This record gives sequence, C-alpha cells and structure tokens, in this order.
Amino acid sequence: MRTETDALGTKEIPQAAYYGIHSLRAKENFSVAAETIDSELIHGLALIKKAAAIVNHEEGSLSKEKATAISRACDEILDGKFDQEFIAPAIQGSAGTSINMNANEVIANRAIELLGGAKGDYTLVHPNDDINRCQSTNDVFPSASKLALLRLSKRLALEIDQFLDNLVQKADELQDVVKLGRTQLQDALPTTVGNTFQAFASAIARNLNELNHSRDALKTLNLGGTAIGTTVNASEYYVRRIVPEVSKQFGRLLYQADNLIDATQHVDAFIQLSHAYKLLAVTLSKMASDLRLLSSGPQFGFNELFLPKKQAGSSIMPGKVNPVIPELVNQVAFQVIGFDTTNTLAAEAGQLELNAFEPIIVRNLITASRLLQKTLRTFRINCISGIQANSAQCAKEANQCAILATALTPYIGYSKTCKLVKQSLEMDIPIQTLAAQLPDVPDSVIKLLDPKTMIPFYETQEVKAN
Amino acid sequence: MRTETDALGTKEIPQAAYYGIHSLRAKENFSVAAETIDSELIHGLALIKKAAAIVNHEEGSLSKEKATAISRACDEILDGKFDQEFIAPAIQGSAGTSINMNANEVIANRAIELLGGAKGDYTLVHPNDDINRCQSTNDVFPSASKLALLRLSKRLALEIDQFLDNLVQKADELQDVVKLGRTQLQDALPTTVGNTFQAFASAIARNLNELNHSRDALKTLNLGGTAIGTTVNASEYYVRRIVPEVSKQFGRLLYQADNLIDATQHVDAFIQLSHAYKLLAVTLSKMASDLRLLSSGPQFGFNELFLPKKQAGSSIMPGKVNPVIPELVNQVAFQVIGFDTTNTLAAEAGQLELNAFEPIIVRNLITASRLLQKTLRTFRINCISGIQANSAQCAKEANQCAILATALTPYIGYSKTCKLVKQSLEMDIPIQTLAAQLPDVPDSVIKLLDPKTMIPFYETQEVKAN
Amino acid sequence: MRTETDALGTKEIPQAAYYGIHSLRAKENFSVAAETIDSELIHGLALIKKAAAIVNHEEGSLSKEKATAISRACDEILDGKFDQEFIAPAIQGSAGTSINMNANEVIANRAIELLGGAKGDYTLVHPNDDINRCQSTNDVFPSASKLALLRLSKRLALEIDQFLDNLVQKADELQDVVKLGRTQLQDALPTTVGNTFQAFASAIARNLNELNHSRDALKTLNLGGTAIGTTVNASEYYVRRIVPEVSKQFGRLLYQADNLIDATQHVDAFIQLSHAYKLLAVTLSKMASDLRLLSSGPQFGFNELFLPKKQAGSSIMPGKVNPVIPELVNQVAFQVIGFDTTNTLAAEAGQLELNAFEPIIVRNLITASRLLQKTLRTFRINCISGIQANSAQCAKEANQCAILATALTPYIGYSKTCKLVKQSLEMDIPIQTLAAQLPDVPDSVIKLLDPKTMIPFYETQEVKAN
Amino acid sequence: MRTETDALGTKEIPQAAYYGIHSLRAKENFSVAAETIDSELIHGLALIKKAAAIVNHEEGSLSKEKATAISRACDEILDGKFDQEFIAPAIQGSAGTSINMNANEVIANRAIELLGGAKGDYTLVHPNDDINRCQSTNDVFPSASKLALLRLSKRLALEIDQFLDNLVQKADELQDVVKLGRTQLQDALPTTVGNTFQAFASAIARNLNELNHSRDALKTLNLGGTAIGTTVNASEYYVRRIVPEVSKQFGRLLYQADNLIDATQHVDAFIQLSHAYKLLAVTLSKMASDLRLLSSGPQFGFNELFLPKKQAGSSIMPGKVNPVIPELVNQVAFQVIGFDTTNTLAAEAGQLELNAFEPIIVRNLITASRLLQKTLRTFRINCISGIQANSAQCAKEANQCAILATALTPYIGYSKTCKLVKQSLEMDIPIQTLAAQLPDVPDSVIKLLDPKTMIPFYETQEVKAN
Repeated sequence: MRTETDALGTKEIPQAAYYGIHSLRAKENFSVAAETIDSELIHGLALIKKAAAIVNHEEGSLSKEKATAISRACDEILDGKFDQEFIAPAIQGSAGTSINMNANEVIANRAIELLGGAKGDYTLVHPNDDINRCQSTNDVFPSASKLALLRLSKRLALEIDQFLDNLVQKADELQDVVKLGRTQLQDALPTTVGNTFQAFASAIARNLNELNHSRDALKTLNLGGTAIGTTVNASEYYVRRIVPEVSKQFGRLLYQADNLIDATQHVDAFIQLSHAYKLLAVTLSKMASDLRLLSSGPQFGFNELFLPKKQAGSSIMPGKVNPVIPELVNQVAFQVIGFDTTNTLAAEAGQLELNAFEPIIVRNLITASRLLQKTLRTFRINCISGIQANSAQCAKEANQCAILATALTPYIGYSKTCKLVKQSLEMDIPIQTLAAQLPDVPDSVIKLLDPKTMIPFYETQEVKAN
Repeated sequence: MRTETDALGTKEIPQAAYYGIHSLRAKENFSVAAETIDSELIHGLALIKKAAAIVNHEEGSLSKEKATAISRACDEILDGKFDQEFIAPAIQGSAGTSINMNANEVIANRAIELLGGAKGDYTLVHPNDDINRCQSTNDVFPSASKLALLRLSKRLALEIDQFLDNLVQKADELQDVVKLGRTQLQDALPTTVGNTFQAFASAIARNLNELNHSRDALKTLNLGGTAIGTTVNASEYYVRRIVPEVSKQFGRLLYQADNLIDATQHVDAFIQLSHAYKLLAVTLSKMASDLRLLSSGPQFGFNELFLPKKQAGSSIMPGKVNPVIPELVNQVAFQVIGFDTTNTLAAEAGQLELNAFEPIIVRNLITASRLLQKTLRTFRINCISGIQANSAQCAKEANQCAILATALTPYIGYSKTCKLVKQSLEMDIPIQTLAAQLPDVPDSVIKLLDPKTMIPFYETQEVKAN
Repeated sequence: MRTETDALGTKEIPQAAYYGIHSLRAKENFSVAAETIDSELIHGLALIKKAAAIVNHEEGSLSKEKATAISRACDEILDGKFDQEFIAPAIQGSAGTSINMNANEVIANRAIELLGGAKGDYTLVHPNDDINRCQSTNDVFPSASKLALLRLSKRLALEIDQFLDNLVQKADELQDVVKLGRTQLQDALPTTVGNTFQAFASAIARNLNELNHSRDALKTLNLGGTAIGTTVNASEYYVRRIVPEVSKQFGRLLYQADNLIDATQHVDAFIQLSHAYKLLAVTLSKMASDLRLLSSGPQFGFNELFLPKKQAGSSIMPGKVNPVIPELVNQVAFQVIGFDTTNTLAAEAGQLELNAFEPIIVRNLITASRLLQKTLRTFRINCISGIQANSAQCAKEANQCAILATALTPYIGYSKTCKLVKQSLEMDIPIQTLAAQLPDVPDSVIKLLDPKTMIPFYETQEVKAN
Repeated sequence: MRTETDALGTKEIPQAAYYGIHSLRAKENFSVAAETIDSELIHGLALIKKAAAIVNHEEGSLSKEKATAISRACDEILDGKFDQEFIAPAIQGSAGTSINMNANEVIANRAIELLGGAKGDYTLVHPNDDINRCQSTNDVFPSASKLALLRLSKRLALEIDQFLDNLVQKADELQDVVKLGRTQLQDALPTTVGNTFQAFASAIARNLNELNHSRDALKTLNLGGTAIGTTVNASEYYVRRIVPEVSKQFGRLLYQADNLIDATQHVDAFIQLSHAYKLLAVTLSKMASDLRLLSSGPQFGFNELFLPKKQAGSSIMPGKVNPVIPELVNQVAFQVIGFDTTNTLAAEAGQLELNAFEPIIVRNLITASRLLQKTLRTFRINCISGIQANSAQCAKEANQCAILATALTPYIGYSKTCKLVKQSLEMDIPIQTLAAQLPDVPDSVIKLLDPKTMIPFYETQEVKAN
C-alpha cells in the first residue's frame, strides 16, 4: 500500500493501483450500484487528455518528456489496458469530478511509471497541474461524454442502417401479399404486407434522420471554457487549439461552442439525443406491438404473419410459441422512454453555472445507446428477417371485407354504400355479390371492388447514418 | 371604478367588483390560460374562511358583527353566487397567494356591503386583518385544496362504485360464455367472458381501495400553522379549534397535522392522490385496450365482443363503426398519467419551508378528478352496459383450440403433449380427435379437453367508496 | 328542431344549428371536459375543405355551384363566424372523425343555406359525398392539425424572438456587472450578470433552432392518402393537386408525404414538436429557477438580482414580495413536460394503419403552444425587462471570493493554492492579501486575482423564427 | 458438451452446465444488456419450487425420491451455490418464461445429479413435468418476484428506519439553533435547524408508512392459478396448499389472491411499489436540494449548514468542496422516477390474460430497491450524520430579518406593518428599533419580535418498517 494525501487527509492505496486518492474517495462515497465508468467514456477522457498534453506542450507549458509520457499513457488506455483502474461509479455526485480525477490519476501514475518514477510520486507528473492542465471537469467531462456518445450513437445509426435494409428487403419480398388494413382495430381497406414493412421502414428512416440531426449537436464541445466557461487558467493558445487537436485525434470535425458559459451550464445537446432515442423507441414499440398483433394466433387471432419461432413459449402449455423478440423490443422501448424522464428531470435541475446532474444523464444515454443497438440487432436477426406471411389468410380477408364497398361511394354516395355494407355484414353476403345486383352501376365500377386495384406500392427513401 | 391601493401602488377596480387589487394583479400577471379557480376550490376557501371567522369570534378577536357578515358572505359563496368574482388564474405563481387573496377580497367586500359600507372600504372589514386572521396562504390554500379534492374524489369514488356494479352485472350476464384466453396474444386456455369482466372488476375494486387509502391522506390539514408551520399570528385558541370547526362545517372528521412545519412544506398527500389516479388510469387503459382488441372485426379480428355502436365510425368508409368510447378512455388515461409526471416534477421542486408549485398540482388533480369521473360515466353508460358477447365465435375458439391439450400433460407429460399440439396445428386435426387416438389414455382424461371443465368462476369482493 | 338520420338512427337537432347528427353524437359520447375544438384547428379544417372543393371542382366531380357555396362557407368559418358550431369535444375517441364530421356538417349546412336550401337537406350538399370528397378523417384531421400547429408554433417562435431580444438587451445593459459564478451551488469563479443573460439567450436561441427544425416536420401532409394512405376514393387529379392548393391557401410551401401509408399511421411529426416544446420548457424552467435563486433575499439569500415587484407576496407577512412570474414559468414548464409524457404514451399506442389517439396529442400541443407563448410574454414583460442588478452585492462577492486563487495554480500549483484557499477561508483573510505575501510570485500574477481580468464577454448569435 | 432437444430443435450445452436448452435460447435471444437474473429473484424461484415439490409430494404426484432431490437442489440454490447458472437476461421477452425455465432446468439437473443421473437426462427429473408441476411461468414468475421484492423492500425499509433515527438525532442535536425560514426562496419567519430535520423526518416517516402499505400488496400471490388463473393442471390439493407452504418456507404470512384470473393479468401490486419508491424519491430529492441550498457558500450562499467534506470538489479550483452526497441522492431519485415511467408504460401495455412486460417492471423494482437502500446508507453515513450548523450565521439572519414584523400585525394591522417592513428594508434600520418607536404599542408586543418566542418544536412520530 502507498499513502496518498489530498486536502481532506490521507488514504492507503494499493501499491499496484494506478488510480489514486480521489478515485478511491469516489468509490467509497458513491457505491450505490455495481456499475463503473463505461469503456467508451474512458476512451473519450483519454483522447482529450492526450490532445491537451499535445497542445500544452506546443504552447510551452508542458515539457516534451512529460507530454510524451502522458500521450503514451493515454494511448495505452485507448488500447483498453487500464479499464479496470477506472473505479469511479457511473452514478455519482460531484458533477463528474470523480470521473475526471480518475482519469487524471490513472494517466499521471502511468506516466510517472513510464518516466521511471514510483506511482503516487506526483512531483514527477501531477494529476491536476499536468494532466488536467488548462482543463476543468466542467469542460472535460461533458466533452468526453460527447465523444463517447458520438461513437456509440454512430454504432447505433449503423445498426439502424442494417435494420432498415432488412425491413426494405422484407417489404420487397412480401410486396404482393395483399392483406386487410385496419384503422382503430376495425376492418378497413386493403393494403399489402410489403406496404406494412415499407411504412415501418419509412418511419425508422425518419427516426434515423433525427438521430443524425441530434448527433450534430454532440459535435460542439466546451473545451477551453474550464470551470464556468470563462477560460480561466486555459492559455489563449490552448483555448484556440484544443478542439482542433481533439478533432484530429478523434478523426472527425468537432466544433468549439461560441458561448462557452452557455455551453458549460446547459445540457440540451444531451437531451436532444435523449429525444432522438425516445422517438426511435416509440416507433420500435409501435412496430413490435403491430407484429405481435398481426402474428396473434396461431388459430384465432389476426394470424397474418408468422414470426420465426425462437423458443418454447410456455412452461405449462406445450406447443405454444410466443412473440418473444417483439416483447423484448417493447420493454427496451419503455426503458428508453423512462430514461428520458430521468434525463429531463436532471436537465431541468441544473443550477447557475453548471448542471451537477450530468453523470446520470450520460450514464443513461450510454446505456440506451448500447441497449438500442443490441435490441435492433436481435430484432433484425431473430425476428424481422425470418418473418413470413400467411398468404391464404391475408388474401381471404382482403377479398371478403365488406368495407371494400368504400370504393363505390364516389358513384353511389355514402348513404347508399352504408346500407350495402350493413346488409353484407348482417346477411353475410359478399359485398361483390350485392354490388353486382345494384341497378345502374357499370361493371367498371364493380371491378373497383378488387382489392388489388386499390393499393399503390411505396418505396422507402434511402437514409444513411451520417 | 374605485381605486384600491396596495404596497406596490394603486389600481382601478370596477365599482361592481367584489374582487380587489390583489386579484386584479394576479389576473394581469398570470393570464396564460383561460381557466380560473375551480368552483370546488372556491367552496373550500369559503368554508375555511367561515370557520376561521367563527373561531376568531369565539376567541374574542373578531366582533360579532364582523363575524356574522363574514359568515353570511361565505355562505353566499358556498351557494355559488360569486363564482365569477374569482378571477385569479388556476395556473399561477405566488404559491396560491392570489387564490387566497381573491377569496379574502371577495368575502371582505361582500361583508362590507352587508354591513352597509362601500366596496373597497377595508376599514370596515379588512381582507388580511379580518378575513385572513390567524391564517396564511400556506395553510389555507393546501387545506382548501384538500377539501375540494375530498369532495371531487368522493364523487369519483361513487362513480367507480357504479362502474363496478356495472362490470359485475355484465360479468353475471355473460358468466356462461366460454371463450379462449390469450397470453402474450397467443391462443392459451379457455376462460369465460364473465371471468374477463370479473377480473376487470376485481382490479378496479383494488384501485378503489387505493383511492380510499389516498383520500385518507387528504384529511390531514395544516391549518393553524400559518406561514411556515410555526403558528405565528394564530392564537392558541385558533390553533386548537380551527380544524374541529372546519370538520364540523365540512361534515366529516378532519385532522390537524402533528408537525405543521412538515405539513406546510411537503406535498406528498397530493402526490399520493396523483398516484391513485394513475393506478386507476393504468387499469382503465388496459381494460379499454382489451375491449378494443376483443371487439376487433367485424369480420376479421378477434370479434368476440360486440360493443354498442355509438356513432358512424368513418367519414369515408361507410358502415364502419369504431370503439370510440374505449378510445376516449385510453386518451384520458394517458392524460392522467401525464399529469402525474407534472405533479411529480412540481413536488420534487419544493424548496425549504414551502412548495411554491402547489397551484399546478392542485389544478391537475382537480382536472383529473372531473375527467376521470365523467369518463367512467360515459364508459359505463355508453359502452360497458351495452356490451354483448359473440357467443358463436367464443364457443368455436374455445372448443377448437389445440392448446386445450395442456390438460393432458399431467398424464402424458410435456414433451408428448407438445408433439400432439404441433400435429394438431400442422395437420389441422382437432386436438380431441388426436387425443382420442392416444393409447392408454382413459376416457376420463380425454374428457378434460372439454373447455367448460377447465374454468372456475370468480366473483368480485365488494368494495365501496369510503 | 329538425330530424337528422345516420346509420344508427335519428336525432333531433336545433333548427338553427349548422352542426348535424354526427357532431351531436360526439358531444353526447365524449363530454368529459368543457373544451371543444380550438379555433386554429377549425381554421385548418376549413382551409383544407375549401382547397378540396376547389380541386374537386377543377377535376370535374363537384359542380361550380356547390364549389362556390362550399368555398364561401369555408371563408366564413375562417372569418370566425361559426366557431360556436364546432361542438365536438377536443378530447375524443374516434381518431378525429367527430372533428372532421363537425366541419363537414357545418360547411354543408352553410352551403345548403347559401344555395337557398334548408339546413339538414343533404340532398343539396352532402357532408360526406361533397364536403369530404376524396378525403378521410385520417388524412384531413392530422393535416388540419398540422396547419393549426404551424400557425400556433410560428406565433410562439415570434414570441421567442422577442424574448431573445429582451434577454440580449438585458445582457447588454448589465454587461459590466461583475458577479460570482457558482458550480454545484458553491462559490466558484467570477462572471458577469451580462454573461448570465447571454448564456440564457444562447440556450433559448438553440431551442428556437430546434423548434424551427421540428416545425419543418409539420409541413409534410398526408392529404390524398384518404383512409389508410392507399388513396382509395381520391381521384388522381386530387391526389396530385390537393397539397399545392392547400399550400396556396395557407400561404406557405407544404409537402405531400412520399409514403402516404407511413404518414397516416405514424405521428412522429407531432412528437418532434412535443420534444421541441419540452426542450424549451427545460431551459425556461432552469432559467426561472436561477432567477428565483439569484433574487433570493431580500436580506439573507443570494440577493444579486432585483426582480420587478409584481404583487404583494403574502397574505400574512407584510412587505414580502415573491418571484411570482418565474414561479409561473416553472409550473408551465412542468405542465409541458407532463404533456410530453401523455403524447409519448399516445404515440406509442398507435396500432396498424392508424393512431387512434391523435386527438389528445393535438389537443395537448395546441394547449402547449398557447401556454408557452403567453408565458413567454408575461415572463418578458413582467419579469425579464425589469430586472436590475444588486451591483454592490455582486461586486463584493466577486472581489472577496477565495476561489479567485484558482488563477494562481498555473504558477504555484494546485496543492499550494489549495492550502492558500483553506487559509483564507479559515482565517478570514482576503485571498489577495495572502497571495501578496507569497514569495517569488511576481506582481503580474497577483494582478490575475482581479476578477475583471478573468471574464470574457460573449454575445449571442442571432436566430430568427423561420 | 451434451445435446439437448426442445420443440424447436437441438442445442449443444456445456457438459458442466446445470442450465439447459431453454436458458441458452434465452441468452441468445435476449442478450441486450449484461445483466442476468438478480440473486434475490433466484432465491424466490428456488423457494417456490421447493414448496411446490413438497406439496406435490404430499398430494402424491411426486415421488419421495424426486421431492427430496428437488428440495435439496433448491436449498443449495438458496445457499447461493448456483447463481452463475442463471444465465437468462434480466431484460427479456417471454413474460418471464425464460427465467422460470432457467430455474426449472438448473433444479432438474442438480436433482438428476443428486439422484446419480447425468445432467440432461430429463427422464429422471423433468424440468416441466416435475419441477414446474402444477405451475406456470405466469404464476411462478410474479410470485417469485414478489418474494424477492418483499425481501429487498424490507431491507430498504430497515435502512429507512436507521435513516429516520439519524434525522431525528440530528434534529435533537440542532434543536436550539434558531434560523430563518424561507417561503418561495424569500426571507420569511424564523424556525430552527432542529425543526428542519424534524420536518424531513416526519415526511420520510410518512413515506415509510406508504412503503409498508405498498409492501402489503406484494403479499398476495397468484400461485395455483397456473397459466391464466383458471388453475388448469394444478391439483385441488396443490391449489389449496401451495401458498401456505410458500408462507412457511418464506417465514411470513402470504395470501392467495381471491380472483386468480385478475391476479394473473394485472400488475398493480408492482406499480404500487413503484409509486411508493417514487414518493420516497421525491422527498429525498427535495431534502437533498434543500441541503445543497442551505450549505451553499462557503462565503456567499445561504451558508447555514456545514455538510461533511467528502472529497476535493474540483479538478481546477483548489479548496472547493461540493455537496457530492446530496447530488448523488438527487440523481438516484431522478432515476427512480424515470423507472416509474417505464413501469407505468409496461403496466398499461398488458393485454388480455397476461402482462408480457413484467420482466422490465421487476427488473426496475429490484434495481430501485437496491439503489435506494445503498443511497440512503451513504446519505446517512457520509452526509446527514456529520452535518453541523453555522450557528452564527443562523442567529444573525433570524434576528435581523425584517419579516419578523409579521408578529405585529394582530396589533397594528397588515397595512401599517407593511410600511414598517418597507422602511426597515429601505433604510436598513432594524425592525426592532422601528417597532420600539411606534406609539401605543406595549412592550409585550415588541417582545414578540424575538425569534425564539415564535417557534414551537415538533417531534417526529415513530414509524417502523413492518
């Protein structure tokens, strides 16, 4: 064990540990859940710390030796070598200070080691003075979180791409299966299974557009603003150069906020992402519910679609198979919607120059990113791609539905058609038969009762993850 | 016009008006919605003001003349004569001060008038010194709100009583209609339509119990606590006597909070009511969705129940009839759930000795009380009471469902039964036929496949509005 | 009274009424709240009905006589002459059919009257066959709602413009008032009152951008799709021409959805608007809370800002004045956030070819539009514009705060500075005095402890309502 | 590896594994999060399975040999020996079937092993026919979840007990520290720090009562109802005996639902617990926010309380210490409130005879139980217990506040007092001085301006975890 000291006193730290006294205090103060900092957030921190070291060295306030050691330490973290040293709980007070200090300590100790020193000897490399130079938790933590979320939401966007391809493919495959449409759960007009999937795809494509839009907001960082956006302790050179350097390391264009005070206290960029996820969740949940409904049966439900059978459905009812994947999708959607409630509460509770509740927002967005991505994957692979249509049932319904008579209204009027439909339903006579008996209605109009003539086919506009 | 003065200056008030300068300022400051104070809240205020006048007179600090005039003014308000004088917006800042002052002013001016004075001459009767004597907005407003909500929630509870009776009656009526049950929307085991309605009733009865429970919390008032619960400016006599007097006027036992400081700053009694409403909303929404699903059709849905036809369903599709009442129920449920989000945010935002956001909570609870009550009424009258079963469809499904084979598993095991079910479904052979061909299965077991033998009938325990 | 008939039977209608049997049934079925259709929604309906009449006449299926009468009836509605004839409740089942039929009936009866007929004689002009020609509730109701919301949200956006101007003006006015910033409610580094308002403005400007973005989604209509997006009963000419004609009447470019089936069943455009409102609500609520905190006092709170006094604050504590306008803002924000919960639930509950719960979403968005607009107005006029700074208090805090020592860390390091701050706080010695006593610290560094040197001034980028 | 077979095909299972093919399919289908079944839920399952084996043996349908082996296997699970064999994801479709089957498989394989067989040889002990005998997922899963939640919520209730003790102790300790109270964040009347903590305690005690109340609802189980509550496949003996046996094993009285069909499809018992947690979260969040506000400073905030210093507050501002524990509390509260949104959505989405979304509700309630318990612990140990009052600041504020003049209003009236307060504030003359100069006001009244005379002391009624 080694002894470390901070303003509040001393703590024993395991000799092997790269983390230090600040990280340990966080662990002791905040261990209300098992979860520690997400690996993508760790990487975001390491990337920023590396960029800061480079810029501070360029500016002249960090020696080449230190900068090199720090950069190497950061690279090792980016390689995943020190994930287990990040012991700060994901849910934490401190507005992220513990997360930032955990990074500062791990990097400092690894840099010290690389320079031949003993871990804990912060005279060689100091967590605050060197690693955190020109920085504050208040610009580093949200910026690192944005890098993490840009990565994770990009992965999600790519998964949506694949999901979309799958939906469109399924739509093409089932393009010709005419089926009955319903409004308000009542028999309405005919459509096709293909159109059903194109409609899903079209909505998901719009959600992807919104996700792309909300990801743009993540690209604006408040680095350089330090504690409250006034740039105190950040050199002019640093303020000007840090975001370009982070962009370079990150591999895509990022921007510095015009108003760093605003950018430090408002968390709306995160809430926009939360909204985009909620929007996607709503569409997915509606789609999952529709699939459960359309596959209800096997004997006495809607019974129009066959979902792939993924597991025995019941511990008591042999032979029962359930729509387990859509059920998973609904629940994940509910969770993501609940996260948005939490995130909204946290955002609303921000006070003055900082929102102290960013950690829970970031935690929930990271969790939601991964959850949605994996859920889309299993939805695609274990459900959508294997769906088949019950063509016989679909055809029967589309052809026999009395509401087909709607097509007659331009010719015989709403009231007469209404009586016809009533008669068809009450006497159980096909609407086509009744229509054919109408006086003065030409054959060309009767032919309109063929459901196939009533349905255009829509294709989904292509959208790609940006 | 008459001129009134307060600490901020003067205002012209219409001569005929009973409200005064404080009410007018509220109208000017807060007119963001058309809605003013609810009549039940007005009555709650008048009742407390009357009780306070009586107690203050008993104690000796209010003359008989004034007390009599105030009481009479309050009685007139309770008769609904001055509703239009309550101009303070329902949604308002000020933690309800404007609502309380509106009452103080109307009562003062009416009392002045009764005493032969001119409205606005507060030397005769003073809104603060006389009407508000021993009181603060901070004990009057939440207490008056609780009286209003006790009344409104009682009315709702009585409506639930009737709704329950209706459900149970419907259950009795359809007790013998055997139908197919579903789990996860897949065909499961048989039940009866009667049981379906008993299950609804049983859940609603539990919700009523919870509503009764949450109403109990409303019976504890913080009257006597004045501004922050420390009883400043309330005489000892008043502190001891005000709640019993309010009880007497209100006609049921009410309690004074043990800790008036706590009772002044925490709004959990309101949130409990919000929860009880949300709980009811969830059950109602589930029930409405089930009814929409079970009545889906008329040709190709579940088609097991016939809901009463209430209006033409479509402007374009003649003869279509939709489940419009359950759709209303779902939407009201969503609204009530959304109100709970608002109420939760408002409760969480309370600070120190007071929650300044009580007005929005009270407004939403009053709205929800009325909304739920009227919705239950239309649900009962325009939907539940007229529901009929499609007995033929129900019987067909219950008798032909392959999952009936579940009853065989105790005799032939899960795996064998599973094969039987698969065979029945794939080859479209009745499960009863296949079962009869099994070797070594006695007739007594085969008879278990009769759905009627599989269903107990449950009755709902009676619960009444307390 | 006149008698009207529909598929379910007959009803007596007041002879003077322009509404008909469908409207009356809606009133009877859904009267759970006093609220009927919003005037902007009525106008949206009338505009679409007029455009449809024009296009149907061009196409040849509606006579000149009828088209002229219908157009004139619509113009009269647009002039506000028939608002009271729209009796369908805002909260309703039927997916909006009752709202659409109310419009169809009022227009038909007025057109009949204009053509010299008697109200109720639908052989002259028919609500469904003529007014609703080529239409369905399922394309008319959401499209009319979008027109209404485009108007209302534009009005809100213009109000935000003014609000922004006001914030920026206030920021300019108080640009030089140095004050203490806080993070996590603890004394942090200096900023200015001007920067505080610029930060608010900058966030609101971003919210306005998002509102503009979400308004774009409202510009895509599903007109022409009729019942489920398959264009049944709409002539080819109508499908092609209706949106351009609506655009022309509406006065701005609108678009027809690429996939009308998708556009008929998914309500994400509404949810995006709901999100934009929620985003704005979160910022406003945070701002209101900050203003309440910064004006806390008058003797013993933060006491840095003076809000304009709007009304006496207490019925019991004389001389007390409260931040009533920000308190209103918080509550309206909570309400808007709660509406988003409701809207999300309603959107998620959509089934198959239609979302039957659009009415509650539209109702809440209309309410939120008006609520936010009026709240911003009173916030601006009755609060922001009259705010003054307590310059003495602000200066004192900024100059005496020990955390100013942060500026020394680049020169003497984090640990030494930490000790200095501790010493200053514990011994109550100004940090400047202690710093001056440090050995080896040049005057140029000591001068950094002047708060004025620590603060850049930010200006807000201009954004305008689109 | 061994090969296992189900109705859908075969799977290779590691030879050492106790789980089987159903568990493995669940893992493959649902792995969207790392989290598997919680240990308390595992124990709930094992306890029920053991009780079922005992009852089935008593009834005669399970051999002594099998029953003994199954009981022993369950005991071993209860000892925590097989936690890692429960591989079914916590978030899952299937309405919990995978969770139930995982238990069935692990118990069967361990029982087989104990009987000398080879894992996977289900002819010896069968997961469905033996372990799941007389059961369905639909009664086992919610019942096991209730057992788990009874345990976890009891632990939480005990933690609340301790937290309450701590609050009351702190209140006693600081009973005499007079301080200023605030309403709407403005200076109001005096109170004591002790009363502040008693008010917190009193509210938390009420929340504990509600938690106790909601825990009662968990004690009603639907065991015996099997798939849809109709008791199919459960022997009469089992239906009568299972809940008493589970009660015996569990060590406290549990009840069987009167209406098993209702109890199988409605999840309101879970939602009541969710509400109780939300209620507690709201109180905790308000308390945490108050503590952060009252400890704001150290130089220029409210500065009335000193929270224990738990860690350095800033990576950039040396000497800054932040209220990190209350910040944690706020965030956990937001999370619990968000969970309630999710749970509400899941409850509302139940359909017909079952709610397929119970897994997410149960998962969130288990998580919330643990989260709240640990958060209360750190709140108590690391914050509440170490709080100290800034007595000098408190006394100064209480004595100098002009609003003390409120005590004069019963004697000189509201309007005169109002002028006095204004004068005191504007001229900065102590209110006591001004009051003393009033003509005709006796000394006894002037003495009322001593804050100490204005404050009663409240004690909290004791409540205990039931």
